[in-house]
Amino acid sequence: MCMRERMNYKFSYFLDGMKPSEIRELLKMASTKGLISLGGGMPNPKTFPSDVLKSIMNDLIETRSAQVFQYANTLGVQETLDILPGYLEKTQGIKCLPENVILNSGSQQGLYELGKVLANPGDTIITEEPTYVGAISAFSANGLKMEGIEMDSMGMKTELLEERIKQLMKEGRKPSFIYTIPTFQNPTGYTMPLERRKHLIEISRSYDIPLIEDNPYGELRYYGNHVPAMRSLKGGEDVLYLGTFSKVMTPGLRLGYTIAPTEVISKFNLMKQALDLATNTFSQYVAYEYIKRGAIYKQVALNIDMYRKKRDIMVNALESEFNDGSIWSKPEGGMFVWLTVSQNVDTKQMIGEAIKNGVAYISGQAFTTKGAQKRSMRLNFTYGDDDQLAEGIRRLRKTFVKQ
Amino acid sequence: MCMRERMNYKFSYFLDGMKPSEIRELLKMASTKGLISLGGGMPNPKTFPSDVLKSIMNDLIETRSAQVFQYANTLGVQETLDILPGYLEKTQGIKCLPENVILNSGSQQGLYELGKVLANPGDTIITEEPTYVGAISAFSANGLKMEGIEMDSMGMKTELLEERIKQLMKEGRKPSFIYTIPTFQNPTGYTMPLERRKHLIEISRSYDIPLIEDNPYGELRYYGNHVPAMRSLKGGEDVLYLGTFSKVMTPGLRLGYTIAPTEVISKFNLMKQALDLATNTFSQYVAYEYIKRGAIYKQVALNIDMYRKKRDIMVNALESEFNDGSIWSKPEGGMFVWLTVSQNVDTKQMIGEAIKNGVAYISGQAFTTKGAQKRSMRLNFTYGDDDQLAEGIRRLRKTFVKQ
Repeated sequence: MCMRERMNYKFSYFLDGMKPSEIRELLKMASTKGLISLGGGMPNPKTFPSDVLKSIMNDLIETRSAQVFQYANTLGVQETLDILPGYLEKTQGIKCLPENVILNSGSQQGLYELGKVLANPGDTIITEEPTYVGAISAFSANGLKMEGIEMDSMGMKTELLEERIKQLMKEGRKPSFIYTIPTFQNPTGYTMPLERRKHLIEISRSYDIPLIEDNPYGELRYYGNHVPAMRSLKGGEDVLYLGTFSKVMTPGLRLGYTIAPTEVISKFNLMKQALDLATNTFSQYVAYEYIKRGAIYKQVALNIDMYRKKRDIMVNALESEFNDGSIWSKPEGGMFVWLTVSQNVDTKQMIGEAIKNGVAYISGQAFTTKGAQKRSMRLNFTYGDDDQLAEGIRRLRKTFVKQ
Repeated sequence: MCMRERMNYKFSYFLDGMKPSEIRELLKMASTKGLISLGGGMPNPKTFPSDVLKSIMNDLIETRSAQVFQYANTLGVQETLDILPGYLEKTQGIKCLPENVILNSGSQQGLYELGKVLANPGDTIITEEPTYVGAISAFSANGLKMEGIEMDSMGMKTELLEERIKQLMKEGRKPSFIYTIPTFQNPTGYTMPLERRKHLIEISRSYDIPLIEDNPYGELRYYGNHVPAMRSLKGGEDVLYLGTFSKVMTPGLRLGYTIAPTEVISKFNLMKQALDLATNTFSQYVAYEYIKRGAIYKQVALNIDMYRKKRDIMVNALESEFNDGSIWSKPEGGMFVWLTVSQNVDTKQMIGEAIKNGVAYISGQAFTTKGAQKRSMRLNFTYGDDDQLAEGIRRLRKTFVKQ
């Protein structure tokens, strides 16, 4: 991937607030110095199962071209809808039926649809603080007001959540839904333990507030024991669950899915007709074969091996370089480390300096609607080459000078 | 494509208002009797360039898998953005730059984005009456009020349009944009001649109301002379132009594009980040190679030959069967014939009877927000086999009994 492409990706998150002339200057420097980007959220291209996909695609074109290139139903290709429940039961213990599934153009589309279907413009909703920048974008585009609930290393603080709900209800602002990424959260990498998940479901049920569980990284665990998805727990049958093929197949084929009660699925159906008629048929058939042939399980095992090593390189580099009172998450899976530096600086203002030093990150403020998280940043460890990861952390150290 | 899939596609347009038990009954009959659907808007699967796509896909995977399977920029893959202006100049005489292009997950997504970016909920906009059902769906989802302008066989009546704009402005409801499908319109098949196009541009400019030109069928002309796209005309430089690969490559790869001034493109960029982050990377690279190798021009020539014949079969069958004062369009291109029967019936109420007779259509009311067009229906001639088309019209005749 050329530098131009890499730099343009989610460009605004890096460089928000800078003048075009400054950006051009930085870009020039970055492209001559060999920028190491820890900023994006991309899988490593070495995880793309190219040979398998090539073989699947050839088979599909030779045997079913009239179907795989035609429009699909808005909810999805039937074979793909049919095979997903088995995959979800095997990997997440989730029990659902094909009629509980809608296939989306990436799970970003699922987030947009949820914001549109479950809430009205002006409504209040609950997120983690900090939370996924794409969720902020999807919910903001629908005119929703986000109330972020503080996290610790066990995820959203559910005691705080309950207090906040009570307070909001007093103000006549009962939240329309609660949005959480309980496993290897984006941006922090934290995972919510079982007990807190149960508490969250209990809160959702007793206050009658729908709960959205976004689980894009659930398959990518490198250490520790599996924590069950909330959708798989007793009482979690109505949890709205988002999954994706971006991290277990490829992101470029743009395929995600939402699991929901059938009455919500029919609202998604209407909504998606307006949004883009239907998801890419070819991608859906490819994903179907990818699961059916069992290739997904083999590839995920390879991804885990590769990413575990990269995670260790980054965490170890942080331990060597940032032992000055800075703190960072030690994720058991997923794609991100959350670093909070000990210096009293604004990481957003420091991004120019970092790029001069040849490293990019996304500053904490991108993940909040409050302007908080100033001393924090999100670091991605899946995209870079092994030696780039350690060097990237050294360049960060140069940027955030030890005091 | 199996019957179940064919029937589910845009199911609601066929059977809106019927009870589930009635629908089940009809479906049972349809699947035993061999339903001929003139209802969908699908290209014929024989037009899918499977061999070319297979060869392109294999080449892409062998040489560029790290790129073609990765996330793309939100605006699109650079190569595809770069090649489209040349294609548009060659086929439509449109002059634009890569920075005027955004690639979408089908042009349906372009419609949704336009409705979101160019207008606010509650705003009034102008469409043709009748108009594309997907546009109604996209604009309704954004809370827009549609004012339909009556058409004749030369498209939207621009004299009426101007009167209506004046009236709306008096009421303080200046339209936020004008939406037109000037070439082989959906659902009518009518084409707006050059003089009226110039008038429409003049109106758009003098009242300062943005003009959207949706041109999904522009490449598919079977008779008559090319009428220039409004975007290609003098004064039409600010026209927002929608195009698609669905009818010249395949619909299942979900790829469309919008041409717009750069300041509008940057709003689309933000919007699309919220909607689905980026369009399918693989589809974009495939489309790039499909143009670059010249395969698109060869395939379109083949499509035109096939569809011209199908159009003739349908128009001839209507001439034999419906010579009772019924009227229908004789499209010079595109995919649809618009039939208005002489009987004083509601085609929506007749759909059950039609399916009993083994034929389906979409009733006129699907294409209007006014409940008008009751005696009309849209007939598709691209999807069915040649012998099905004539038989379908005979079954329609049985349904709308000659009086």
